[in-house]
Amino acid sequence: MEFKKIIEEKSDKSWEVYIPNLSIDCVVFGFDNAVLKVLVTKLKENNLWALPGGYVFKEENLNDAANRILQQRTGAENIYLQQFRVFGDLNRSEVFFEEYDNSLWNKQRFLSVGFYALVEFSGVNLVVDDISDACEWKSIDELPQLMMDHSSIFDQALITLRKELNYKPIGFNLLPEKFTMPELQKLYEIILGKKLNRGNFFRKMLRYDILIKLDESRKGGAHKAPDLYKFDIEKYEMALKNGLNEGW
Amino acid sequence: MEFKKIIEEKSDKSWEVYIPNLSIDCVVFGFDNAVLKVLVTKLKENNLWALPGGYVFKEENLNDAANRILQQRTGAENIYLQQFRVFGDLNRSEVFFEEYDNSLWNKQRFLSVGFYALVEFSGVNLVVDDISDACEWKSIDELPQLMMDHSSIFDQALITLRKELNYKPIGFNLLPEKFTMPELQKLYEIILGKKLNRGNFFRKMLRYDILIKLDESRKGGAHKAPDLYKFDIEKYEMALKNGLNEGW
Repeated sequence: MEFKKIIEEKSDKSWEVYIPNLSIDCVVFGFDNAVLKVLVTKLKENNLWALPGGYVFKEENLNDAANRILQQRTGAENIYLQQFRVFGDLNRSEVFFEEYDNSLWNKQRFLSVGFYALVEFSGVNLVVDDISDACEWKSIDELPQLMMDHSSIFDQALITLRKELNYKPIGFNLLPEKFTMPELQKLYEIILGKKLNRGNFFRKMLRYDILIKLDESRKGGAHKAPDLYKFDIEKYEMALKNGLNEGW
Repeated sequence: MEFKKIIEEKSDKSWEVYIPNLSIDCVVFGFDNAVLKVLVTKLKENNLWALPGGYVFKEENLNDAANRILQQRTGAENIYLQQFRVFGDLNRSEVFFEEYDNSLWNKQRFLSVGFYALVEFSGVNLVVDDISDACEWKSIDELPQLMMDHSSIFDQALITLRKELNYKPIGFNLLPEKFTMPELQKLYEIILGKKLNRGNFFRKMLRYDILIKLDESRKGGAHKAPDLYKFDIEKYEMALKNGLNEGW
């Protein structure tokens, strides 16, 4: 069915079940082979990509709605999902539906709550919804043009993630269970968009006291096998809650 | 006029002009004589205090609405105001109006966008609105019981402020133009709720490179007059935008 018809057919039902004027947009990050990627969907008949999003049921908590939307799209459970900002300017979405009837659900003013998610790449099964014809991971360095203000929502999510590196641990939802220090450093470098000094990174990370060094090392390769680490989940969770043991 | 009557009389007009189901609550911090205070209002005929708040006009940007609400209440211009979280659980506000008609504006489900503000104490002229009979500064250590989930909104604002001390400068909107290093340290200690080492604080603050040491010192007192500082506004603004020059 064509895009316009689906949108129009859904309108009445949407007015009935959802909180009006409020949407959710999700910036879903995954880390795949040393590339940081974001989940985007391509709208049917439009050459436009969008962040996955949705609405809040009248009888649903906001955070539950964001979890539901992401679960439907990715099949992933236990997603690390955080609100980061409300995008509340006028005409951020309305104009996109200019040619539709004024009563259309989607044509109303929407304030959108931005969530960002960190997911384990291998645990995700992408689902294409009925108004899209593709749902894909794209490298953050090669994002396609996004609809409405979705580029700005993505930018703000990345800025938030960068700032949070100063007081929150990261990596548990992005890396495999066992990883090397250079792999962890690579994740930081990609998020920050800059190279870090290897020695400083190593010392700072050990001071955070959230890693467990394993008795095994990565096999294969001609060089000395690098040490493997995993996160100390208890300390990691504490640091997520109380901040890293640095700073003030 | 009594509280119930005012609320009921306003209802129709509110449905007409505001975005439904969406409110704003503000946690306004001020620093007065080494005490961190928060602005609260007391509802008429209720022995309940509340955070100042309001709604968003249908034709108004979200952040503009928060500024308008605070300006009406405090008279202060150029307030440092930041969104920090949406409080979107069911029944966070509805039950408060249980005895009212179901069509009442205030009895609907509201998702509330929390903003925190830092204001210069001396620049504020508190205004009591028509549903309140008091609007006062209260020390964060002696907050009265707050209505609905406002205590939790306050807690989250303080947690946000603490985390942000790790990557953002603070003080410009809370301290007088000229201040001593012990005064700045006191502000940090009060927000963090703990004592800081004087030497470490001094070194860390200088590394941030956002202060200008003045050629004058505080007069009066028997001890050696302490040095006065002011913020280097240009560097301060840069650090607000890009983060402090520490961390990653």
